[in-house]
Amino acid sequence: MAKLRAVLFGATGIAGQQFVSALHGHPWFELAAVAASPRNAGRRYAEALGAGGWHLAEPIPPAVAALELLDPGAVRPEAYQLAFSAVEADVARELEPRLAKAIPVFSTASAFRMERDVPLLIPPVNGSHLGLVRTQRSRGFSGYIVPIPNCTVTGLAVALAPLDQRFGVRAAIVTSLQAVSGAGRSPGVAAVDVMDNVLPFIPKEEGKVESESRKILGRWKPGQAEVEAHPMRVSATCTRVAVLDGHTESVSVSLGRPAALEEVRSALRDWPGDPTARALPSTPPRWIEVLDAPDRPQPRLDRDTHGGMATTVGRLREDPVLEHGVKLLLVSHNTKLGAAKGAVLVAELAKSQGLLGAFSEATRGQPPPSDEALGSEPRVH
Amino acid sequence: MAKLRAVLFGATGIAGQQFVSALHGHPWFELAAVAASPRNAGRRYAEALGAGGWHLAEPIPPAVAALELLDPGAVRPEAYQLAFSAVEADVARELEPRLAKAIPVFSTASAFRMERDVPLLIPPVNGSHLGLVRTQRSRGFSGYIVPIPNCTVTGLAVALAPLDQRFGVRAAIVTSLQAVSGAGRSPGVAAVDVMDNVLPFIPKEEGKVESESRKILGRWKPGQAEVEAHPMRVSATCTRVAVLDGHTESVSVSLGRPAALEEVRSALRDWPGDPTARALPSTPPRWIEVLDAPDRPQPRLDRDTHGGMATTVGRLREDPVLEHGVKLLLVSHNTKLGAAKGAVLVAELAKSQGLLGAFSEATRGQPPPSDEALGSEPRVH
Amino acid sequence: MAKLRAVLFGATGIAGQQFVSALHGHPWFELAAVAASPRNAGRRYAEALGAGGWHLAEPIPPAVAALELLDPGAVRPEAYQLAFSAVEADVARELEPRLAKAIPVFSTASAFRMERDVPLLIPPVNGSHLGLVRTQRSRGFSGYIVPIPNCTVTGLAVALAPLDQRFGVRAAIVTSLQAVSGAGRSPGVAAVDVMDNVLPFIPKEEGKVESESRKILGRWKPGQAEVEAHPMRVSATCTRVAVLDGHTESVSVSLGRPAALEEVRSALRDWPGDPTARALPSTPPRWIEVLDAPDRPQPRLDRDTHGGMATTVGRLREDPVLEHGVKLLLVSHNTKLGAAKGAVLVAELAKSQGLLGAFSEATRGQPPPSDEALGSEPRVH
Amino acid sequence: MAKLRAVLFGATGIAGQQFVSALHGHPWFELAAVAASPRNAGRRYAEALGAGGWHLAEPIPPAVAALELLDPGAVRPEAYQLAFSAVEADVARELEPRLAKAIPVFSTASAFRMERDVPLLIPPVNGSHLGLVRTQRSRGFSGYIVPIPNCTVTGLAVALAPLDQRFGVRAAIVTSLQAVSGAGRSPGVAAVDVMDNVLPFIPKEEGKVESESRKILGRWKPGQAEVEAHPMRVSATCTRVAVLDGHTESVSVSLGRPAALEEVRSALRDWPGDPTARALPSTPPRWIEVLDAPDRPQPRLDRDTHGGMATTVGRLREDPVLEHGVKLLLVSHNTKLGAAKGAVLVAELAKSQGLLGAFSEATRGQPPPSDEALGSEPRVH
Repeated sequence: MAKLRAVLFGATGIAGQQFVSALHGHPWFELAAVAASPRNAGRRYAEALGAGGWHLAEPIPPAVAALELLDPGAVRPEAYQLAFSAVEADVARELEPRLAKAIPVFSTASAFRMERDVPLLIPPVNGSHLGLVRTQRSRGFSGYIVPIPNCTVTGLAVALAPLDQRFGVRAAIVTSLQAVSGAGRSPGVAAVDVMDNVLPFIPKEEGKVESESRKILGRWKPGQAEVEAHPMRVSATCTRVAVLDGHTESVSVSLGRPAALEEVRSALRDWPGDPTARALPSTPPRWIEVLDAPDRPQPRLDRDTHGGMATTVGRLREDPVLEHGVKLLLVSHNTKLGAAKGAVLVAELAKSQGLLGAFSEATRGQPPPSDEALGSEPRVH
Repeated sequence: MAKLRAVLFGATGIAGQQFVSALHGHPWFELAAVAASPRNAGRRYAEALGAGGWHLAEPIPPAVAALELLDPGAVRPEAYQLAFSAVEADVARELEPRLAKAIPVFSTASAFRMERDVPLLIPPVNGSHLGLVRTQRSRGFSGYIVPIPNCTVTGLAVALAPLDQRFGVRAAIVTSLQAVSGAGRSPGVAAVDVMDNVLPFIPKEEGKVESESRKILGRWKPGQAEVEAHPMRVSATCTRVAVLDGHTESVSVSLGRPAALEEVRSALRDWPGDPTARALPSTPPRWIEVLDAPDRPQPRLDRDTHGGMATTVGRLREDPVLEHGVKLLLVSHNTKLGAAKGAVLVAELAKSQGLLGAFSEATRGQPPPSDEALGSEPRVH
Repeated sequence: MAKLRAVLFGATGIAGQQFVSALHGHPWFELAAVAASPRNAGRRYAEALGAGGWHLAEPIPPAVAALELLDPGAVRPEAYQLAFSAVEADVARELEPRLAKAIPVFSTASAFRMERDVPLLIPPVNGSHLGLVRTQRSRGFSGYIVPIPNCTVTGLAVALAPLDQRFGVRAAIVTSLQAVSGAGRSPGVAAVDVMDNVLPFIPKEEGKVESESRKILGRWKPGQAEVEAHPMRVSATCTRVAVLDGHTESVSVSLGRPAALEEVRSALRDWPGDPTARALPSTPPRWIEVLDAPDRPQPRLDRDTHGGMATTVGRLREDPVLEHGVKLLLVSHNTKLGAAKGAVLVAELAKSQGLLGAFSEATRGQPPPSDEALGSEPRVH
Repeated sequence: MAKLRAVLFGATGIAGQQFVSALHGHPWFELAAVAASPRNAGRRYAEALGAGGWHLAEPIPPAVAALELLDPGAVRPEAYQLAFSAVEADVARELEPRLAKAIPVFSTASAFRMERDVPLLIPPVNGSHLGLVRTQRSRGFSGYIVPIPNCTVTGLAVALAPLDQRFGVRAAIVTSLQAVSGAGRSPGVAAVDVMDNVLPFIPKEEGKVESESRKILGRWKPGQAEVEAHPMRVSATCTRVAVLDGHTESVSVSLGRPAALEEVRSALRDWPGDPTARALPSTPPRWIEVLDAPDRPQPRLDRDTHGGMATTVGRLREDPVLEHGVKLLLVSHNTKLGAAKGAVLVAELAKSQGLLGAFSEATRGQPPPSDEALGSEPRVH
């Protein structure tokens, strides 16, 4: 089977480089083109990065190194079957709709996360929300836009999902200890700021954690025009610590009913994730690993569990303050499941649901479908 | 006025060194003798430390450098007017009662913190509890033992005290990001463990935070045989981060009544602390500094506020989960107010309350006093 | 005596902030005006920095906080008696000559360091070179430009000077382990680059170390048109490590004659520095502190020796490779003597030599002096 | 072919854990038994480590987790075909000769490194020295002891070997920036010591670098009773920096003849290593990777090159101080090639040379061989 041809925007930044790595050797997708800021257009990818510009430990895949960087404005999206976007939010606001007219766009940018007709996807948590993209036809899109959530939301939503499904979640209080890679590199977090220090504030982050987690854990059924946000209350405090990769989160949860710790533990450990996400190429053996050692999870030791696609959870205890309260610590890899690999996972989901490839090609140039067309159920593998 | 002569136990460890520094040039106390493990007995202090054994940036005070280290077992406490103890809990359990038979002992060890007749003191919070030491006469002590709390409790109790006094505190959920110096140096936290990492567990720490904070904020009146613990519920998660000094704490508080953020801010900012602690030599200009910049407090920038004796508080926000909920971040210097300087402050309080010097000398060899003798009020300066 | 009025350029950057701190409470100089990029012109200094924009632990001096930021292009240098420049090299190239037409400029920028008529000053090493500024009259300057050297050169030159004076120095091989603050903050060194890492390359740094050290240790006598570079060979390898402040340097030196280690030690320890620099306001008790403990100097423990104005030296050993070889490690504070405080020290030297205040005022508008006027000897205090 | 059965001493320490990892899935060796301090004897390996006692990111191999820890004194070496030793030097001095009476011992301990009849092996550098072990028959050994060098020597020797073979090496000046993992974990380097700091002294390290590198690069031919040390002069300065793994070294070399940088580069890049080491299971594709980017090698990015078995070299420049001088930076993985994996590589070499398995079995209980028996040439694959 021929691979689907993907074009990547924001290819030279650190998030873009992570897409290059995540797509290397992918069984379904081929990175066919890379775009970055116009001033680099025409140069080969490796050359534009220059010495010292590639920040991953593995080498640049040779096929990508030789690709000529495109000017984003000159890219004809019809030439590809999907797009990945690793650009900043303000750039995304212009770029992504232009692409989505023709093809699906899988994005790490925050620009469209909270829009009514846009699902915010972590496949094991809410893969079934993907069908909401069909409502984007009313924007005149033959494709659609699917963003992944903020990287701090990812681990939280993964840990809350099984608790919500089994016990209900009424509220959560979370303090994050976030890695510096979450801020990128240009300029990212300055060493003079974070060394021997904790930065107690990350602009806009706490609001994102609170609103995005409620949308992801919310309800959507085919035919609905938007996701109904989860009614839980969420209180977030987001800090930055001197860790390279891997966000740690201290979470207290108020459950919907009393639950013994052992029940909670098994709810987390045995969680299969959404049926739509159980057999994708990037699906890990388990979405959550519950660690029993008292001093785990630790970001350096646990972030790479199952290739950074699993959330590790530990230190399960009762919380004496919240009603039916439990507390735990979790570690989630902010630049793997929480970024490029998470967006690739969403694209895999889209393909498995028949929403890639022929999907856009068929609709290109057609008028938006009637509402009934939005009603089909997701397919489960 | 002649200074009171103090003897220091555990003098060569990092906590002991901090006592040496805290007592240097003290207006009321003179470090007259130093004791450490018997194998160093007879050597001069500077020589026993050896090259590389003194860990503070300032040099060893010459008068202390020349002191001969005593074998703890050979110290005659009657030769001094007070003792400072920087030993480990298991050593303290044997040593401190022996000393307290003759003189007051101010200690950073945890051994006696939760005993019935022992106050757990942070002078601005509960200086008025000091009188409880009189009940230790029933142990046959002419002196007494006063420990300071765990260094993570200190900042929390200082921040909760004004809130409790103004609004009442029903519950608190705290996640700490603690500095490595809190673990000492022998061996302390290994660099291979904490670099590029968060350690999500500190043995016994969370229990201490929960029980000690309730005792400190509890009630005691002269005549009572013990402190009545505060009824608030406390939920703690304690982590270690790659910070040298200064514990950061993310705290969500449920107040006893609704309060506007501005009211909360002024309750913190204008808090004068306990009247007994307002004019001691180590009393800072303010016990709490409320910082308005959105990215403060930070441990590296704020830990040394007022010589490490102030708690800095910032990021005051409503907490949507807790009833009458507010949340904040605080930084407290774990090796200053939270350790040696905090213990010296308690000794200052004792002196100002007439519980040092003549106090023990008068009672040495006397039978324990009647209960009425425990009834006198603290004096306020 | 009225203080001399100084204007500071590049006032909002981290180097500028260090000048603000270095001039706070200065006995001779008053920071009368601050300038920064035009977009901030008209705003008060504290307001332009904004929350989180001041990076030192001590607060902004209130008098400076209230100063209105000037547009550099609108500053009339005649209104001040001296200027401090903390701008980038490319800005300095335009700005500093314009200022020097009217007043002396003391700069941390590299733009003019290697020019023929410009001395490169570390007062204890080559304070006597200051007179070379008189030759700048031929540029039509009533003032002059004096840069301080690269911050890595500073500690090296201080350590080599006494060795050169006593034994001669033929060659030096140096590997630096530089602090991140040396790169500033905009963007400075990214945490994702330097944490758990060593950066083995700092652009242009090694060339500066090699050429600037030879100029500083070179010879100049009144009447000479330029400094005669020292003939020693210098080989530098410059790296960046995860240290906040304080450059560490491992130095192997080939001396001009055999010398016992004890002789070398006393040459360093007893070095009085240049006579011109012995009694300035910022002169420390000793320019070099030789540490005998085998594990010193360390940047965190030793960088602040004598307020960051002293170079600490330790681990003196024979070097078996170089002829008459000795080796040592040194620590020098890159943002104190190596930056703003070093530039203030040069201004103090200028004042003590009669080259500030009346100096420029007298010459403003006059034709350049004859060569004889350049021949006067430096005055020694 | 049945795997050779190995017993590991010091199995619970961090070096021991690295052996467990290095032997996992090894094609020739099977970890059949583990020994550690007597107090743990009888417990299963995983249980003795306890929660938090295993420090590698990958899990403990299940087969090893279940092994019962042996008391070293109770181990019968005849039951195994080789031993790996990760014990401290003082323990090694007693233990290793006892083992070597029966079987070959491959050790990371320093105890025997400089003994006359003991080769100090880095297979690509001096694999041909292995035959010297035959002279240990005169100690009454049926086996022998082969230590690997100090981890700082490893990268240096690998980089100097090709230069010495092509140009001759007269002298080297090296400053190391060593990772904290080199000091182990009990207690290892304390975080309070190394964070925001450089430790300028590592006890005994510099002497080891100087003497061990001369032995490794020395000459030995079959029949010689000891290695003839290389006459080069070596000057080392060893420091510790806040890096987890990977030693960085700044090296200036005086070559035996003039050489263009390009010649030097190709000497390094094209170096095949000793013929005896070219086809062992752990042999990497190249022993040296020369990096052309100006900011490489960096320990975090380059330490794992070829599984930590390659030395990365960069920043090749002329050194203006030394005769025929060149300088470079290198990174070598101190806990891979520089420790357990390096010792396993030596054992592989021994097997490929016919010095494992049948070797000891045949000689056990026999008298020492005549000198002629020591004269056979190494076999090359």
